[in-house]
Amino acid sequence: MSDRVKYILDEEKIPTHWYNIEADLKEKTPPPVDPSTGKPMDISKLECIFSKGAIEQETTHERYVEIPKPVRDIMRNWRPSPLFRARRLEKVLDTPARIYFKYEGVSPSGSHKTNSAVAQAFENKRQGTKKVTTETGAGQWGSALSQACSIFGIECKVYMVRCSYDQKPYRKAMMELFGGTVIPSPSPYTEAGRAVLAEDPNCRGSLGIAISEAIEEVLKGKDTKYCLGSVLNHVLLHQTVIGEEAIKQFELADDYPDIVIGACGGGSNFAGMAFPFLGEKLRGGKDVEILGVEPAACPSLTKGKYAYDFGDVAKMTPLMKMYTLGSFFIPPAVHAGGLRYHGMAPQISNVARQGLMSARTVQQLDVFRDAVIFARAEGITPAPESSHAISAAMDEARKCKESGESRAILFNLSGHGHMDMAAYIEYFAGSLKNYDYPEEEIAMALSGLPSL
Amino acid sequence: MSDRVKYILDEEKIPTHWYNIEADLKEKTPPPVDPSTGKPMDISKLECIFSKGAIEQETTHERYVEIPKPVRDIMRNWRPSPLFRARRLEKVLDTPARIYFKYEGVSPSGSHKTNSAVAQAFENKRQGTKKVTTETGAGQWGSALSQACSIFGIECKVYMVRCSYDQKPYRKAMMELFGGTVIPSPSPYTEAGRAVLAEDPNCRGSLGIAISEAIEEVLKGKDTKYCLGSVLNHVLLHQTVIGEEAIKQFELADDYPDIVIGACGGGSNFAGMAFPFLGEKLRGGKDVEILGVEPAACPSLTKGKYAYDFGDVAKMTPLMKMYTLGSFFIPPAVHAGGLRYHGMAPQISNVARQGLMSARTVQQLDVFRDAVIFARAEGITPAPESSHAISAAMDEARKCKESGESRAILFNLSGHGHMDMAAYIEYFAGSLKNYDYPEEEIAMALSGLPSL
Repeated sequence: MSDRVKYILDEEKIPTHWYNIEADLKEKTPPPVDPSTGKPMDISKLECIFSKGAIEQETTHERYVEIPKPVRDIMRNWRPSPLFRARRLEKVLDTPARIYFKYEGVSPSGSHKTNSAVAQAFENKRQGTKKVTTETGAGQWGSALSQACSIFGIECKVYMVRCSYDQKPYRKAMMELFGGTVIPSPSPYTEAGRAVLAEDPNCRGSLGIAISEAIEEVLKGKDTKYCLGSVLNHVLLHQTVIGEEAIKQFELADDYPDIVIGACGGGSNFAGMAFPFLGEKLRGGKDVEILGVEPAACPSLTKGKYAYDFGDVAKMTPLMKMYTLGSFFIPPAVHAGGLRYHGMAPQISNVARQGLMSARTVQQLDVFRDAVIFARAEGITPAPESSHAISAAMDEARKCKESGESRAILFNLSGHGHMDMAAYIEYFAGSLKNYDYPEEEIAMALSGLPSL
Repeated sequence: MSDRVKYILDEEKIPTHWYNIEADLKEKTPPPVDPSTGKPMDISKLECIFSKGAIEQETTHERYVEIPKPVRDIMRNWRPSPLFRARRLEKVLDTPARIYFKYEGVSPSGSHKTNSAVAQAFENKRQGTKKVTTETGAGQWGSALSQACSIFGIECKVYMVRCSYDQKPYRKAMMELFGGTVIPSPSPYTEAGRAVLAEDPNCRGSLGIAISEAIEEVLKGKDTKYCLGSVLNHVLLHQTVIGEEAIKQFELADDYPDIVIGACGGGSNFAGMAFPFLGEKLRGGKDVEILGVEPAACPSLTKGKYAYDFGDVAKMTPLMKMYTLGSFFIPPAVHAGGLRYHGMAPQISNVARQGLMSARTVQQLDVFRDAVIFARAEGITPAPESSHAISAAMDEARKCKESGESRAILFNLSGHGHMDMAAYIEYFAGSLKNYDYPEEEIAMALSGLPSL
């Protein structure tokens, strides 16, 4: 086994194809359903919202989908991302575990989000889209799409969840630096926003609300399309470059993970890392445990209901079969805006449903405690979202210390936390808290699930 | 010539030796002088302030100084740093120039500063130092030293220039995340700080003041040493890993720079990139132009006097022969805290004096304009300090467009600007301004130069 601390690949090693888990699943992911008919959606109806390329990628069952050459060319600026062996963290934890992490914070947005942003912006450019709208929670997706659109000369408008907008002024500035326009959501500029504000003028917002606003603007606009930063099949597909690279890097390391860990919000960074490994296993490759980690405050995979639900609060999306907390559940304002989504990606939900992965929740204070330990050991300041994966990986490494077992633990460090220092300031000031499972609010939101 | 956008090296290619320009200079850099005698300093006197290792490295005339193995081991987490070919920026500028930049923002502190921080922390650990103190302007050096000390279990206390402390709360948070303690300077905790505050309770601070405070604490403390983030020979030496790597990377690119550009504050990132190339030239290698860039608000190289002066405001340091604006000159509060220093490193001053490099100033608004163009093209958010080099490099590329010449332009992108978004917010709000050369203040400060 190698004694390196990082495994890097030349830009020629950027994967030429995305990996599609659908090809290897025995039970296919249930299709989206048209809420007006209760029947599987006529996908072409979505062409008024999404680019044609996105819709093709959304529905294909091909195992490998070619990454367009211009997208690969752009990704050369930060891909392949490094795979690190966390040797100093292992020492600090005094664990026999071998801890690896893939670091997506090297991208323009400082997170994995740029992988999909470039792919989506490219498909829009190809068909002549002049403007795109989107939602953003933590601001990573909004930064990524702003920058990708800037490369292709497309206008980009971002509805940013109000609580993140207030917590993270630097993210807004970064989106503007990259040429995007940022609107706090709920906003007075859309019907969906106005309806929410009428009920609660101080609403802290949710991804579900921001999605409604962004889609509404598309439906009213011209040459305007919508881009989503997670949840959908094509977004998960775009992120599989992460796991595909990691597989090559583990060959360099002459090692293989026993467990692959990712933080789960909508699910794209998790799936991007985990699905290629799961695919190898499903095709008869090495056994590997897959673990999704979510905040206790927004536990869709662990506490949600597997049901058809809307992706947004204003019920503008098709119905998707997923683990959901109810589309009008507004999660507590934890400092992990990227994980504050009521549902889990349909493909991940389907994989979880079939027992091909497990999931657990972590509490905010444990996440920050472990983020600090990690930062001091490895010299990387992690995003709070990514720190959910760090914390679970460290727990696995602590178990190894107890058992004496030397497992290879891989997690996805989906982004840096340079724009999240306000959260660290609050943590050090002792003003962050844990959140109990918001049982009543979730029960109420679930009671409103559409009946099919 | 290669068509890549980045040139990466495996961690085995981290330089084994630092390069010392002193060995190749015909006219040696004048030694520091003891202000009490007016004669060359007995360097051993400085052992109460600096680590022994630092003092050895400060005074050696050996061409190559071995990098201790533990320092190289730690640097594996971010070194070798990537060399980029800025192909999208070239397109945006429509220039025949070939623009390259070395990106030091991948380090734990997000800047080149970590290169020296680890080396200095190691030498202190080796001799049993329990605590180090330092100054920081922009906060990059303070972040770097905090993290390096955290690795070696050394306590770290940082005096942060007040105007940066107020501008950049996230930098303070990052230092604390890495385990450092941060004090705004001037502070009421030292005689030097109290003296300044007595004259001006609202003093915006300067690196010269912060240095005085940090040294004062060392002189009063036990097992406590001082670390400086720039200016001195050993700090410049530590940064030469940048240029040494770049030389190897240009071999991969099958190219060689016609001009090497760096931003100059104290001078360490500039020297770290430029000296290895200058050394090759001095030893009969290829011709290369060397250009230092400084803010119009603090123009030591272009407007300063070449004279013996103190490194700090309280006259606690030895006298150093350098281009200086006078040690009690307090530069305007430009958003480039790392460049707000009254003097230029003695070695750089000596190199400039001999006509081996040129220098120019750039204005704040031009710097931010070019930083935005760069960020949109290359997807990297640059630090304001580094953006001085960007702006000069873009000017050189614009000249190539006019002349039709295809020059190879290399600049050092010394750090990311993720902690500087407040400056971008002000720039977009139109509230940043240019600063005229502060003629009167400088004349007054220069009139106080020590007579020798």
